[in-house]
Amino acid sequence: MSRSTFAPRGSVAEIEQGTAFAPKLDEAGLIPAIVTDEADGTVLMLAWMNAEALALTIETRIGHFWTRSRNRLWKKGEESGNLLDVIEMRTDCDQDAIWLRVRVRGAGVACHTGARTCFYRAIGPAGTLGPMADAKDRRP
Amino acid sequence: MSRSTFAPRGSVAEIEQGTAFAPKLDEAGLIPAIVTDEADGTVLMLAWMNAEALALTIETRIGHFWTRSRNRLWKKGEESGNLLDVIEMRTDCDQDAIWLRVRVRGAGVACHTGARTCFYRAIGPAGTLGPMADAKDRRP
Repeated sequence: MSRSTFAPRGSVAEIEQGTAFAPKLDEAGLIPAIVTDEADGTVLMLAWMNAEALALTIETRIGHFWTRSRNRLWKKGEESGNLLDVIEMRTDCDQDAIWLRVRVRGAGVACHTGARTCFYRAIGPAGTLGPMADAKDRRP
Repeated sequence: MSRSTFAPRGSVAEIEQGTAFAPKLDEAGLIPAIVTDEADGTVLMLAWMNAEALALTIETRIGHFWTRSRNRLWKKGEESGNLLDVIEMRTDCDQDAIWLRVRVRGAGVACHTGARTCFYRAIGPAGTLGPMADAKDRRP
């Protein structure tokens, strides 16, 4: 599957109501992908996919992304063993975002800091950050 | 609260482990915000915030965004009444994404199509789209 296998962007009705997958990539050729834990809905990370990562994720049902810091294709967990098994994959109304519901293999850790989720800090009313009340979502 | 009230970007350790909120906005001055239903974890939408929307959301605990199609500040639900009450607000390790856990007011609908969630279609193994098995997540 390559970029050319995705459908061309059609009318608004086709994009919003159709069955053709016509993802809208941004100027850099990327689309944001929200990754949640299929067991409890926790958002684990927000990552980016290029057309190749998107096609590989659809084909293999394992999460692939494009790392903007290292500027390369990234099979998440390729080194740590914490691969993402995709239970369900969705797109949104205008097909410019992806949602992956996953089960994390290995240690079950999604964040490079060792935390289960990258979202381990709350933004308080005063605009400062604090650890999550729930210990499972704290940075270890 | 204005852009200047956010902390400057510090060292990696400060950004990942600190209590100072130093959001990284992209070249367009925007940061992606994931919105989930606090009751069941469903991802309702992915939207974008500029510094003003971010500050207003922190201050008022009601979801504010920047609409890229209309190019203006957007108090989500200002017309429909489906305002987003923010139950919890988080940021991620590198502070370049926001997660809002919300309760949707009014009809409880987040998508402009009338669906509860913008993510009302699954991407199948063959790369085509289909409605969600769960009726509550289908486009009406």
